[in-house]
Amino acid sequence: MALSDNQLDEIRAMRADGSATLRPTVPALEEILFEPIRVLDHGFLRVIDYMGDDAAVVQAARVSYGRGTKKVSEDRGLIMYLMRHWHTTPFEMAEIKFHVKLPIFVARQWIRHRTASINEYSARYSILDKEFYIPDEEHLAAQSTANRQGRGEILTGDEAARVLEMLRSDAEKTYADYAWMLNENPDSTVADANRAGLARELARMNLTLNTYTQWYWKTNLHNLMHFLRLRADVHAQYEIRVYAEKMLDVLRRWTPLTYDAFVEYRLGSVSLSRTALNVVKKLIAGEKVTPEASGLSPREWRELMHVLSEADAQK
Amino acid sequence: MALSDNQLDEIRAMRADGSATLRPTVPALEEILFEPIRVLDHGFLRVIDYMGDDAAVVQAARVSYGRGTKKVSEDRGLIMYLMRHWHTTPFEMAEIKFHVKLPIFVARQWIRHRTASINEYSARYSILDKEFYIPDEEHLAAQSTANRQGRGEILTGDEAARVLEMLRSDAEKTYADYAWMLNENPDSTVADANRAGLARELARMNLTLNTYTQWYWKTNLHNLMHFLRLRADVHAQYEIRVYAEKMLDVLRRWTPLTYDAFVEYRLGSVSLSRTALNVVKKLIAGEKVTPEASGLSPREWRELMHVLSEADAQK
Amino acid sequence: MALSDNQLDEIRAMRADGSATLRPTVPALEEILFEPIRVLDHGFLRVIDYMGDDAAVVQAARVSYGRGTKKVSEDRGLIMYLMRHWHTTPFEMAEIKFHVKLPIFVARQWIRHRTASINEYSARYSILDKEFYIPDEEHLAAQSTANRQGRGEILTGDEAARVLEMLRSDAEKTYADYAWMLNENPDSTVADANRAGLARELARMNLTLNTYTQWYWKTNLHNLMHFLRLRADVHAQYEIRVYAEKMLDVLRRWTPLTYDAFVEYRLGSVSLSRTALNVVKKLIAGEKVTPEASGLSPREWRELMHVLSEADAQK
Amino acid sequence: MALSDNQLDEIRAMRADGSATLRPTVPALEEILFEPIRVLDHGFLRVIDYMGDDAAVVQAARVSYGRGTKKVSEDRGLIMYLMRHWHTTPFEMAEIKFHVKLPIFVARQWIRHRTASINEYSARYSILDKEFYIPDEEHLAAQSTANRQGRGEILTGDEAARVLEMLRSDAEKTYADYAWMLNENPDSTVADANRAGLARELARMNLTLNTYTQWYWKTNLHNLMHFLRLRADVHAQYEIRVYAEKMLDVLRRWTPLTYDAFVEYRLGSVSLSRTALNVVKKLIAGEKVTPEASGLSPREWRELMHVLSEADAQK
Repeated sequence: MALSDNQLDEIRAMRADGSATLRPTVPALEEILFEPIRVLDHGFLRVIDYMGDDAAVVQAARVSYGRGTKKVSEDRGLIMYLMRHWHTTPFEMAEIKFHVKLPIFVARQWIRHRTASINEYSARYSILDKEFYIPDEEHLAAQSTANRQGRGEILTGDEAARVLEMLRSDAEKTYADYAWMLNENPDSTVADANRAGLARELARMNLTLNTYTQWYWKTNLHNLMHFLRLRADVHAQYEIRVYAEKMLDVLRRWTPLTYDAFVEYRLGSVSLSRTALNVVKKLIAGEKVTPEASGLSPREWRELMHVLSEADAQK
Repeated sequence: MALSDNQLDEIRAMRADGSATLRPTVPALEEILFEPIRVLDHGFLRVIDYMGDDAAVVQAARVSYGRGTKKVSEDRGLIMYLMRHWHTTPFEMAEIKFHVKLPIFVARQWIRHRTASINEYSARYSILDKEFYIPDEEHLAAQSTANRQGRGEILTGDEAARVLEMLRSDAEKTYADYAWMLNENPDSTVADANRAGLARELARMNLTLNTYTQWYWKTNLHNLMHFLRLRADVHAQYEIRVYAEKMLDVLRRWTPLTYDAFVEYRLGSVSLSRTALNVVKKLIAGEKVTPEASGLSPREWRELMHVLSEADAQK
Repeated sequence: MALSDNQLDEIRAMRADGSATLRPTVPALEEILFEPIRVLDHGFLRVIDYMGDDAAVVQAARVSYGRGTKKVSEDRGLIMYLMRHWHTTPFEMAEIKFHVKLPIFVARQWIRHRTASINEYSARYSILDKEFYIPDEEHLAAQSTANRQGRGEILTGDEAARVLEMLRSDAEKTYADYAWMLNENPDSTVADANRAGLARELARMNLTLNTYTQWYWKTNLHNLMHFLRLRADVHAQYEIRVYAEKMLDVLRRWTPLTYDAFVEYRLGSVSLSRTALNVVKKLIAGEKVTPEASGLSPREWRELMHVLSEADAQK
Repeated sequence: MALSDNQLDEIRAMRADGSATLRPTVPALEEILFEPIRVLDHGFLRVIDYMGDDAAVVQAARVSYGRGTKKVSEDRGLIMYLMRHWHTTPFEMAEIKFHVKLPIFVARQWIRHRTASINEYSARYSILDKEFYIPDEEHLAAQSTANRQGRGEILTGDEAARVLEMLRSDAEKTYADYAWMLNENPDSTVADANRAGLARELARMNLTLNTYTQWYWKTNLHNLMHFLRLRADVHAQYEIRVYAEKMLDVLRRWTPLTYDAFVEYRLGSVSLSRTALNVVKKLIAGEKVTPEASGLSPREWRELMHVLSEADAQK
């Protein structure tokens, strides 16, 4: 279980405790403030705080004395314009803070986004909980044969069962040894008064990479969208993508105009290379283009044909 | 005048328009939200928005589920500890946004602090107001003879009068020519239907560096303190220091525990070099140390003696 | 003149002074190292130092023990792949340092790119040279009527002459007064032993924004390309675009494979919004699409038609 | 063994392959370029490339046309001045790139330094080597009782033996299972043609945090010193401190003047809080100060007394 009764009580207490502010507020986001959104088997995502809204983007773009908004339709138009022309600085003017519980191997991908502030639970200082990520069977995929960093078919039968068993028993064993080495586990049956116990900063090295960690993660609206563009993408690893997808929902609640512009000009858009653009022009002119004569690599050709044949641009 | 009646109306409207929030709020900061704080002759500083408070620092340091605070005395102790040991990441978890009106030559110093978000009023897009910074006579200082980047005595008499007259008349003249080149000044007596008018992005180059500009500037608590440490310092140029000093007042309202720690471990602290530390040890031991035998340069010696002789550590 | 004989001598001395290194070197870039490339009337751009080459990108992408290169064709393929899929971190592994002389209003745009290191000539500390940017007549454009931050027709006749005269005389006048206030101009006819002279940090505020400044600017290959994508673009102001165009030439000398990938996937590429992509699909299918039914704004429609009708993708 | 014969051959090939350059070179650093410096049991540190030297710092501080150096004594004085007054930007003008092999739990601390460029070996894409960090017995420390994030006494006897045995056997077991799940280990006795094999991006989650990873890490001289100040410190965890100490040696080879200034004003310096400074003044005046009357916390008092009693400022 990701949250104890104590923790749920703390969260309830925070949600009971409102105050008055002159700052812009977003009721749709206040509704879910502090509430854990479940992700994977033991992870979660919570919005802890936020600053600004769609109007803050408009206000900064106009460097205005008041709220900066005129009509909603004008604000929408301005936000669309800013997104389309990569005028990114006004989107830096809104900020959001999450509390996230996630497996360490996911945290290692996540942290590569450097333009954010992070406070991680310290395993030098504290003892990690006994919680590991074990994939659902439906996500237990084989290595892709087409893509060196992707997944292929789902494992089945004995192999799947054996893999799950290994993941579970190895995590159990290494955690049990971690607890033995610490010799200070809350579970007092483990502690032995005759032993000194290994330093926490050393014992942690025995844990596996699917152990859960947690952190506070704070970023601005611009960098959040950059994160989502890469991590809500089909090429991202499933285990980080599920977090990104929940954050997309948060984005829609928080800044609905920005969300729409993001879908139109980022998530649902495509980039055509110089060569691909020439192919498209020929196709529009009714010319026949072969893969060989296109100037594109086989993979680029496949990707272009895929983009042009989808029933409708995604999302 | 820095603010028109229209602008003051917009600000009043924002201050009249509160809402309920579950987020942490800081009443002492809400009191001055949006209100212009006057700086220099036509500049100002306004707090536009903020996120977090002292408790947010504590909460992030503890990666806690609830507010993270225990007793005020424990929170104070933790914040002191974090500041003392340069555990800076929890201070990144609070954020503040200012609207600032400032002379361009000050803006050019200010922007060297890169870890902030900025939206500046665009003179490519809009027309700058006719407002220049003209120093008060008491700040009209001669070049320092001791310090190549400092000020010395105050100018007096004819020289001072002539300098002020030059600054005023040159700013007036270049602005008048700017307006003529634009040929679209709101003051319709200037516009001439037979002329095309120079592009704004070109005309602006005729303005002097004391012309006022304005921007939205957003940064986190950690970077704000870094800015204040350098710019509220006696070595900073007076014209940027006055902004920093007003921001120190804002800091005290916003995060009083952090403010106290900042004064104790940053503003009021001194750094002793390896050699200076050895001198101090000898002095404590009652040994006599001469400047020549100290190993310090003459200037370092003077600075050390100054630090050790002040009636009380500053601030 | 941008460079004195003394300065040219210093540059010649540096070019005469080679040494042996085990580091990767790029002969085509060594050829122009330290040499001023003229930009605008008094500006320049000089490559002062560099680190890495195309192979450094490959080496980092492979985290290899040796040079990382296999065949040139494989390196080219890998660099194309990295650029196409926005795997940007390997491009951070090469670095370049420029010395740039540029008008202050251009410097103010340039510095908005925060992920670079800068050392600017200090007018607090030193005296600025008497050099201003005065546009050529062919760049003396009127305000665009279609685009609030663009240029339209070229000014002609009396208006052009008068504008040039104003720019020149105002710069001359404010500089002369700057020199008078300083009272320490190398030109000793100005200095007056009976006056104290105004501090440099104050006197500089009297200069106009077309005064030249200079700085050392260092960035990595990834951030350089981001700068070039925005500033070598047709929407950038002419006065910064000319610097970017010279830097494009430097990029081609330095990392030719990366340059090619940059042209293919960035400079020469287009981004289609979700709605524009649907229009393109219909056009390929031979359907007729009207602007009204397209879902695009009139401006977006015009831009899409423009992109699809150009004889060949640019560059 | 950290490096195979193949890898050593690649390194030898690179060291055999010099060229001529006009760029500043540092012979003392060229001597060790590409060579692995051993750290921990299987880790290493290699300097892969560098840009600039002490003179580059001087050159940028002076924004000069030539090398910027005058006499060595003047350069030394300027670098000391810059370091003392926290004029940090000139130190950003030199850059260095390392190849590092390090345990994952160390990598997780290291990466918190955000102002660097990193390319890590990808376990989504490739298979990690079977190499784990196992501490030497002399570093197998108990949890500190005084400091919640530090080490105390060294473990001995059976407890030490059992801990080492656990670390070894758990790493062996989880790696063996990792290999089984992958079903593609180079060691063909493992692969089974009837199984699909788990995707690499999933299998890696079964590895323990003492598994070695490797990366290219590039940073500038300023940020390198910031890293060293925190990580070459006695409060840093031993396993990252050993890397920092080797990097200190590299710093001394690369930029000896900067190194000296760094030792004088950072590594060997102390910061006195406002209250501690007042205590020091009283001590110098010959007054008696008790811990209780000092205004310092007991811990701060102990630390101050320690600093003032050391035989000589460290390093």
